[in-house]
Amino acid sequence: MSERSLEELARHVGGRIVGDAGARISSVAGLAQAGKGQISFLANRRYAKLLASTQASAVIVGAAVDCSVTQLIVENPHYAYMRVVELLHGHRRHKLSGISPRASVDPTATIGDQTHIHDFATISEKVRIGSRCVIYPGVFIGAEAEIGDDCILYPNVAVYDGVHIGHRVIIDANSSVGQDGFGYATHKGVHHKIPHLGRVRIEDDVGIGTNCSIQSGALNDTRIGRGTKIGDGAVIGHGVQIGVGCLIVSQVGIAGSTTLGNYCVLAGQVGVSGHLKVGDRVSVGAQSGVANDVEPDTKIFGSPAFELKQALQAYALVKSLPEFRKTLKKLEQRLAQLEQQP
Amino acid sequence: MSERSLEELARHVGGRIVGDAGARISSVAGLAQAGKGQISFLANRRYAKLLASTQASAVIVGAAVDCSVTQLIVENPHYAYMRVVELLHGHRRHKLSGISPRASVDPTATIGDQTHIHDFATISEKVRIGSRCVIYPGVFIGAEAEIGDDCILYPNVAVYDGVHIGHRVIIDANSSVGQDGFGYATHKGVHHKIPHLGRVRIEDDVGIGTNCSIQSGALNDTRIGRGTKIGDGAVIGHGVQIGVGCLIVSQVGIAGSTTLGNYCVLAGQVGVSGHLKVGDRVSVGAQSGVANDVEPDTKIFGSPAFELKQALQAYALVKSLPEFRKTLKKLEQRLAQLEQQP
Amino acid sequence: MSERSLEELARHVGGRIVGDAGARISSVAGLAQAGKGQISFLANRRYAKLLASTQASAVIVGAAVDCSVTQLIVENPHYAYMRVVELLHGHRRHKLSGISPRASVDPTATIGDQTHIHDFATISEKVRIGSRCVIYPGVFIGAEAEIGDDCILYPNVAVYDGVHIGHRVIIDANSSVGQDGFGYATHKGVHHKIPHLGRVRIEDDVGIGTNCSIQSGALNDTRIGRGTKIGDGAVIGHGVQIGVGCLIVSQVGIAGSTTLGNYCVLAGQVGVSGHLKVGDRVSVGAQSGVANDVEPDTKIFGSPAFELKQALQAYALVKSLPEFRKTLKKLEQRLAQLEQQP
Repeated sequence: MSERSLEELARHVGGRIVGDAGARISSVAGLAQAGKGQISFLANRRYAKLLASTQASAVIVGAAVDCSVTQLIVENPHYAYMRVVELLHGHRRHKLSGISPRASVDPTATIGDQTHIHDFATISEKVRIGSRCVIYPGVFIGAEAEIGDDCILYPNVAVYDGVHIGHRVIIDANSSVGQDGFGYATHKGVHHKIPHLGRVRIEDDVGIGTNCSIQSGALNDTRIGRGTKIGDGAVIGHGVQIGVGCLIVSQVGIAGSTTLGNYCVLAGQVGVSGHLKVGDRVSVGAQSGVANDVEPDTKIFGSPAFELKQALQAYALVKSLPEFRKTLKKLEQRLAQLEQQP
Repeated sequence: MSERSLEELARHVGGRIVGDAGARISSVAGLAQAGKGQISFLANRRYAKLLASTQASAVIVGAAVDCSVTQLIVENPHYAYMRVVELLHGHRRHKLSGISPRASVDPTATIGDQTHIHDFATISEKVRIGSRCVIYPGVFIGAEAEIGDDCILYPNVAVYDGVHIGHRVIIDANSSVGQDGFGYATHKGVHHKIPHLGRVRIEDDVGIGTNCSIQSGALNDTRIGRGTKIGDGAVIGHGVQIGVGCLIVSQVGIAGSTTLGNYCVLAGQVGVSGHLKVGDRVSVGAQSGVANDVEPDTKIFGSPAFELKQALQAYALVKSLPEFRKTLKKLEQRLAQLEQQP
Repeated sequence: MSERSLEELARHVGGRIVGDAGARISSVAGLAQAGKGQISFLANRRYAKLLASTQASAVIVGAAVDCSVTQLIVENPHYAYMRVVELLHGHRRHKLSGISPRASVDPTATIGDQTHIHDFATISEKVRIGSRCVIYPGVFIGAEAEIGDDCILYPNVAVYDGVHIGHRVIIDANSSVGQDGFGYATHKGVHHKIPHLGRVRIEDDVGIGTNCSIQSGALNDTRIGRGTKIGDGAVIGHGVQIGVGCLIVSQVGIAGSTTLGNYCVLAGQVGVSGHLKVGDRVSVGAQSGVANDVEPDTKIFGSPAFELKQALQAYALVKSLPEFRKTLKKLEQRLAQLEQQP
């Protein structure tokens, strides 16, 4: 942690200061927790009332706010906050172990400069790993897998043989990449396992959470596009094609052969059926079930999912169903009465 | 396994006997499977009919039942059953390996008395582990993490650096604790990873299932309150605050910054949105989606979730929607006919 | 990869050829990707239009198609495709390590012929493993567990003590088998862990995906029936009984003590409550919530789930609820008007 003046931070993130530009900032904290020497930020309108009481030396905001705390005003507060955290705190640090003698590294594997292979990691035959990677304990990398530069594989990640991983990819603990998909040919009541010929291609700058499952394709490769980020516990089926810059939140499941466009957002616990085509910039609300193709630039919600605004209205009315039933009965009675009038 | 008289068991759990107090009991079994020398219990009203046919030497019940089997009558049969199982069978036994020479233990780590570190476990720099813990093979404990006394970490659990774990905590296999949350600042279409400054604090007596994901907080620590139990495959988002004594069943997902009160029960596959406040003793039915704050002492259900009784009625009526539509059409026709009458 | 004539393939799978029986086939590829020397197959009607443009030397189909490409016509194209892939490409290959000196194998364990134990695997006391198994790095097998012949346990699978696994079972990476279920006896606000006396019995030919959780039974064994296949990230509760030949797709959760018949299909993200009885050949649609017993040979859908056709109709009408409400209001107004007429 290094101390900076607020002015330095403003220059770093391209913002302007309302208040004490000389304030010394050494760390970042939440609005409620921050004290002297700390900078905070307004993450969410819900917390705006905390601006009145915060003890932070400065606050990152998107527009000047009427309060006494010194403000660093920027176009994109979330991004500025990230850059300030990066500057003052940096990212997680890793043990620089070199290639541990307690790792199992096949002699036919190629390992780049300044790559660290921790104890009890397994690097199989003909694996190629780039430079400046960190391979944590218990990671398994199967034969002929390829990993680019600057990747981090956290403990116990399993990468099956032949998987291709680009540069700057981060895979969190206990995730599995490249296993055969759920592909069985059923004959006379017996489910026969289909050998999977496709592999998994993870492009540059992808992030994958903990306990994820990314299946190899049956025939074609499964693809996770550049810059896409996947949360914890997600399952990506065999042959799924995910575009660039998508956000796939925790516990999402995408069934086999579905294609997702670029910059899609799938909220937590969403399920997408197989063989679908989901367009660019589609946004799917939490727990939704997607059973049909989705046009680009659509926001959808619900299980089954349809257009967001409509869906919010419609699903909110489920609550009124008992009342609907009552009204229907009353209407029938009143109508019957009218009908009986001479 | 040691044999006891039913009388001894009754004294141990504080119950009274109707029938043969001298019966010798050596083990516990289900009502349908139990035979002579075994004690069973009535777990669920569904199984009451089995009391007539059980061959058990005794049955633990909450109130005297009209049947011929010897009964041990207690206030809380489930709890008495647990104590009898504990007495007769005990908990899972662990290999007492000491600190295995095949484990990787950093010289700066502090390990308490009678703590067992199995083969291929990794204990990083400045880790502190209390006494009488069992660390199974393949467990990774990151730098400066702290673990109290009497904890059990099952195979391949990954504890990231700086995580704080209390006493008597059990974490089952392949769970991940302390990874960065799903926090990205999006700027010009690129999702930039936000370094997470918070850590995870797991209080005493917490239980965490297999394949769980507990994320570090972005700014503040994620907290799992004392005595809370979490099922398999659950995902707890960054900065989530869970109170004491909660039951979080399998595959639940709780999004970032949400606060759960004490003694909440979240049934299987429940999803809770981010930044919410869920009060004490809230109960949420299976697969529900919680999208709003919840008052204490509320039972809710559904996706979206609302008050339980109302929700059970309302969701049951989805089935009647085709009928509703028919009725609506008929009403319109009948009304139109009436309107056309002179 | 070995080259074959189409005639050989036809004989192998029992099909007839329309077109060039002498075509040389060396590998399998998707309709869109296949070229000369490759065979493809029609997996899904959605892709039928690709038959006109495919460059494949032959295509496996279920009935003659009017197109110029050579066809291999078989009764069950999916199964024939599987057999052709198996013949031309074979299944995933494994490192034949023997029993690695870097594995931890207890001297009391029994290991069959030609079984490979990779680096950093742990085989505990009195474990019995059959012949021709492959135990990948980081796998943990607890005391007294039994594993049959021809099994594959992928990296970091955790098998708790006493689990029984049959022949030809495949468990993918990072899955956990045999942990205690979510069983706590609550007394005065404290949740007391119940020791689990049951274990897990996995029968022959079962497949289990990555990151799955299969809990031990509280009293009786949890059972996964012969030939049942389980997808990634599924959670099977304590004491669940699953019949033979079931397909349990990714992220399904089945709560404790539920019994599933034979040949059931549970699609992705399905949840099944505890203590239920689901009959043979029941099919449950994706994301459904099963809260009641289900009769054999039933197809159900929805949360709550009911008969499929009815449910598809009913859930599709949620979309029309705002319209229903409007219609109800209009009907009330029109009726009121009529009622006010003299």
